Amino acid sequence: MPKNEFSFELITQNENARLGKIITSKGTVNTPAFMPVGTQGTIKGVFTDDLLKTKSEIILGNTYHLLLRPGIEILKKFNGLHNFMNWQKPILTDSGGYQIMSLSKLNKIDKKIGAIFKSHLDGKKIILSPEKSIQVQKAINSDILMVLDECPKLTRDKKILSNAIDVSTHWAKRCKVELGNVKTKALFGIAQGGLNKDLRIESINKLIEIGFDGYAMGGLAVGENQEDMFKILNETLKYFPKNKPRYLMGVGTPSDILGAVKEGIDMFDCVLPTRSGRTGLAFTWEGKLNLKNSKFKNDYSPLDERCDIKEINKYSKSYLHHLIKSDEMLASMLISLNNIYFYQQFMREIRDNIKKGTYTNFYKKYINFYD
Amino acid sequence: MPKNEFSFELITQNENARLGKIITSKGTVNTPAFMPVGTQGTIKGVFTDDLLKTKSEIILGNTYHLLLRPGIEILKKFNGLHNFMNWQKPILTDSGGYQIMSLSKLNKIDKKIGAIFKSHLDGKKIILSPEKSIQVQKAINSDILMVLDECPKLTRDKKILSNAIDVSTHWAKRCKVELGNVKTKALFGIAQGGLNKDLRIESINKLIEIGFDGYAMGGLAVGENQEDMFKILNETLKYFPKNKPRYLMGVGTPSDILGAVKEGIDMFDCVLPTRSGRTGLAFTWEGKLNLKNSKFKNDYSPLDERCDIKEINKYSKSYLHHLIKSDEMLASMLISLNNIYFYQQFMREIRDNIKKGTYTNFYKKYINFYD
Repeated sequence: MPKNEFSFELITQNENARLGKIITSKGTVNTPAFMPVGTQGTIKGVFTDDLLKTKSEIILGNTYHLLLRPGIEILKKFNGLHNFMNWQKPILTDSGGYQIMSLSKLNKIDKKIGAIFKSHLDGKKIILSPEKSIQVQKAINSDILMVLDECPKLTRDKKILSNAIDVSTHWAKRCKVELGNVKTKALFGIAQGGLNKDLRIESINKLIEIGFDGYAMGGLAVGENQEDMFKILNETLKYFPKNKPRYLMGVGTPSDILGAVKEGIDMFDCVLPTRSGRTGLAFTWEGKLNLKNSKFKNDYSPLDERCDIKEINKYSKSYLHHLIKSDEMLASMLISLNNIYFYQQFMREIRDNIKKGTYTNFYKKYINFYD
Repeated sequence: MPKNEFSFELITQNENARLGKIITSKGTVNTPAFMPVGTQGTIKGVFTDDLLKTKSEIILGNTYHLLLRPGIEILKKFNGLHNFMNWQKPILTDSGGYQIMSLSKLNKIDKKIGAIFKSHLDGKKIILSPEKSIQVQKAINSDILMVLDECPKLTRDKKILSNAIDVSTHWAKRCKVELGNVKTKALFGIAQGGLNKDLRIESINKLIEIGFDGYAMGGLAVGENQEDMFKILNETLKYFPKNKPRYLMGVGTPSDILGAVKEGIDMFDCVLPTRSGRTGLAFTWEGKLNLKNSKFKNDYSPLDERCDIKEINKYSKSYLHHLIKSDEMLASMLISLNNIYFYQQFMREIRDNIKKGTYTNFYKKYINFYD
């Protein structure tokens, strides 16, 4: 098999936790993997060359944002987002569906047409059809594309959930047709069904029938509690094919990740490391620290002894507290970078523990540590 | 002479332009030198390890800001600003005088007491005497300390200018007494006198009589035009001792620097590279570029071919334009770093041209290029 075809290898399991490897034409991604989020063509506050030092192996780009700005014409000029933003490793793109629901002024979801919405930037009317979503993701030159789906807000209403499955399945098919047979890129299906086990299984089976390179759990991390999320994963992940990667969209905290890995999830993305970085919240092996807190004013210890990137372990909590109080950009820069580094270090520990067969111990040690 | 004593060596001159070297216990500074400004214990938006890559050899710290926050107790705990902010090369500190005039609610300048003002942060009444200014600068562990001076706003009023010289000379003496005989640190005097030649010379002579390790021109770059600034430098710099460094405070644009070097200035500081960086203005060898301008949307050329730091030359103007329009922090980070790098590259070219005896050509080529 040529090196540049997309593939997934399941290396080993520790109960349901999976150690694997995704091969793409832009490089290998060890799973379970965490993808930092580059909403507008940048991981907020992080240089791409520093991002490499965090050992991030893949990032996420947002189709909705990139479609609005800079727009596909410019992305095409650069032959995609990799060159535009100077990131030559793999990129996964969402389909734009989630942001249309959460950010734009949505006019209508039309099964036949697509999502009809107004841009949150200038109010311009835009139609995102399944075909258009794939075209934009191709302009981005994404390595892993997601199907356009309808992601309803948290609800137990079966009719809403069923309808979302119906629309999403139809769109998923059209996305697959639009992409065609491109072996260097992957297309992932997205299961809906909320917290309803039967509907989830129905959605999963419909996606499997179409056939995708990987499968995502959508419509989670939308406000339900963690226990409910873990439960639905536990009940339904087994219906996915073993030999394809499984992606839990928009998740999460370190403990969300721990629990989801335990159920068999391989991929994650979340804005938490960078968003927290901008508000003075640092993820460390000592726990989550709110560096705004005045108790850190006189704490001369390093932020995290184990953070060996960019000499971050030379910076004291006292200094970071000072930067935050002084509203200095460097606080966001240092803490965001620390947080991504921590997340990747955390994922490496997860992978090591699955490999050694000690994942349950690791899970128990940290499951209640970060929330 | 032990390596760690402060000294200045004048290596060569090209007409009045001087090539020199400042030795401090924290390292060597090649002159003419540009000092990036680290107001609150950070060069805004720049990691210290990246600052090293710009080949900056010295930075400026602001006594006024650091006195208010984090305060001298914390600075003392770290044995100074170098450790607090992770910058082990030389630091020059201003005396706090300028910020008291420009930022705080100034109550009174009292020759006997000092400057009496209210903090711009919390309105707290603070007295900054010449002695206190030196004590704070010692807590910062500054390598080059500045005397406390009274820096009047732009005026031609001889009485105001004379009075500022009188107060500043008195304070300068007290600063020297307060610092005592510390050979590893330098204390610079600051000449006042506005644009009045006779008053400038009077101020300079009074400072020389006290005797300092270096001399600064204060009270310039306060709104006068460039021609007037160059004129007063031309008329009065010759009164400074040749074997001591000369520092033009708060200056300036690349062309300000070119003209002042021509008259014999050795040191500069300015917030321009970082402040411009935060508003999308990039200094490059093509000139000063306003990257906000929509003409850059489709400009796929690199920001500056000659900027070989942090792969900045891989980023297109189109991408930087996108980041600015998207209000992304990375724009400030990339452009601030580019600008400091450019300034230091510009200073290296200045030094090379003085060394080769071609400074006048370099001056003529760029004097009208950046404004």
